[in-house]
Amino acid sequence: MKKKTPKNIVLDVDGIMTTGQFLYDDEGKKYKVFGPDDSDALKLLKGFMRICFVSADSRGFKISKKRITSDMGYKLVKVSSEKRLSWIKKNFELDKTIYMGDGIYDHLIMKKVLYSISTSNSAENAKKFASFVTKRTGGDRAVAEACLHILKKFFKYSIE
Amino acid sequence: MKKKTPKNIVLDVDGIMTTGQFLYDDEGKKYKVFGPDDSDALKLLKGFMRICFVSADSRGFKISKKRITSDMGYKLVKVSSEKRLSWIKKNFELDKTIYMGDGIYDHLIMKKVLYSISTSNSAENAKKFASFVTKRTGGDRAVAEACLHILKKFFKYSIE
Amino acid sequence: MKKKTPKNIVLDVDGIMTTGQFLYDDEGKKYKVFGPDDSDALKLLKGFMRICFVSADSRGFKISKKRITSDMGYKLVKVSSEKRLSWIKKNFELDKTIYMGDGIYDHLIMKKVLYSISTSNSAENAKKFASFVTKRTGGDRAVAEACLHILKKFFKYSIE
Amino acid sequence: MKKKTPKNIVLDVDGIMTTGQFLYDDEGKKYKVFGPDDSDALKLLKGFMRICFVSADSRGFKISKKRITSDMGYKLVKVSSEKRLSWIKKNFELDKTIYMGDGIYDHLIMKKVLYSISTSNSAENAKKFASFVTKRTGGDRAVAEACLHILKKFFKYSIE
Repeated sequence: MKKKTPKNIVLDVDGIMTTGQFLYDDEGKKYKVFGPDDSDALKLLKGFMRICFVSADSRGFKISKKRITSDMGYKLVKVSSEKRLSWIKKNFELDKTIYMGDGIYDHLIMKKVLYSISTSNSAENAKKFASFVTKRTGGDRAVAEACLHILKKFFKYSIE
Repeated sequence: MKKKTPKNIVLDVDGIMTTGQFLYDDEGKKYKVFGPDDSDALKLLKGFMRICFVSADSRGFKISKKRITSDMGYKLVKVSSEKRLSWIKKNFELDKTIYMGDGIYDHLIMKKVLYSISTSNSAENAKKFASFVTKRTGGDRAVAEACLHILKKFFKYSIE
Repeated sequence: MKKKTPKNIVLDVDGIMTTGQFLYDDEGKKYKVFGPDDSDALKLLKGFMRICFVSADSRGFKISKKRITSDMGYKLVKVSSEKRLSWIKKNFELDKTIYMGDGIYDHLIMKKVLYSISTSNSAENAKKFASFVTKRTGGDRAVAEACLHILKKFFKYSIE
Repeated sequence: MKKKTPKNIVLDVDGIMTTGQFLYDDEGKKYKVFGPDDSDALKLLKGFMRICFVSADSRGFKISKKRITSDMGYKLVKVSSEKRLSWIKKNFELDKTIYMGDGIYDHLIMKKVLYSISTSNSAENAKKFASFVTKRTGGDRAVAEACLHILKKFFKYSIE
């Protein structure tokens, strides 16, 4: 049986590109915490597949948008946890799509896509149902590790 | 003997909904650090029981209020560590109440309620006297884990 | 031989009361990260001994001062690493003093005082030469643990 | 065979002097997280060799510049990951230079210098190809540990 080649990757933002933490002051959500190497590794990956980010976080959406779209140049779409699976179905081919997520609903998506990735500090079910769990945590190179893993596994590419 | 069904959950804020850490500048306490999944899991839990938050933190109370009440919609009451047990007694039935806390006085409450929860990074006695200790830490899914644990243990409910 | 009773405790601020981390923006040092329970536990300890804080951090001194002195009510003195031992000698009786520190010079003080405490994430020598190393880390209950340890060891006191 | 003596150390900033994390608000990158002891240990090291910092981070360069150059007094040069090896070759003698880095391209430099150091939370290849991996992590004494290691290994110096 031939291994299918992924054409798309859909990544959650909070807990994946960030540590999941956010800083609140008395006016609301102010900061999110991003980390090293993820941007560099995504630059490599985008030569191989379409990259799209999703987020259910309304209050912090402008922060995510600033980082993901304005500064890194990737598409970011606001999609709630409940509608995420049907949204991915509608916009991507499930059997050509990698999903990376960390939350308590993400295993529902992981069951349906070609390949799925969570992080070592994801919710229990996200780790249980993921095809691959990164050693690193969100906002601490998990996405970089995921990108290098995908490049090696599906495209025989590594940095030498 | 029939297992009693909890009707209320009282949760501490700092160290439970947050990492416990707070950021100071030269004008005082400015930020608290909240985390992923807790809000989503509490939304599930509130179909099953009354949810109330308590905090002894005066200087950061407005920050907690913004997150817990304005943004998440839960009741938050300022109650000192010393008066917390008598306050819970007065406002809830102890044998129908779950308490979740992490501090050096919280075991005094844990001894009296129906069921108690602390986190893996709580103070020693809070871990020793809790009915259940989450694997996760405060501000890193401990409340989400606690909610899913309660839903499964007392209400046979899980996300499928 | 009778065990000596400590009359003073001198504590470092950064890495002890804080995580050691500080946030920089393009104007300089802006925030330090403090944690839970330490303030509550120090309130217990101050019934038993004199408490004094020291810091070598000039750029962040106003932040430390705000937290330690304005908000918590303790004395805080700016003393460099090099002069710290002689300063303690001059202001306290070394054999009646507990020192709590975490840095690469703190073992030089630890060798001279009655009793010394470092944290599990202190510099190697601070851990090697301390009388007691807390399980917890700075800004994550290390001071609370140290206080409860001192209260139990020297004064047979615990929270029941 | 005589052991060569290092004359220069080139250090990355993000992930080495910082935790690698950075805080974003809706206007962009605002804060980086630095840690304890590194500045003190570098003061010792600069008696023994030339110290230079490099960074590929454009958006946060002013933050790094404020900390590394304005406040600590070291040279900091903006050099991309791709050009870093040739830049080091041009400005230093590779066989008299120590390099400390943590990222997914840093092993390419580590293969060429006299001695290389990464941290326990560096990217996999940075750990695999480094001459020495610190126990501590970036922004949590990794540079302090590296400095004390270098001072002991190459100059028989330690703090007593």
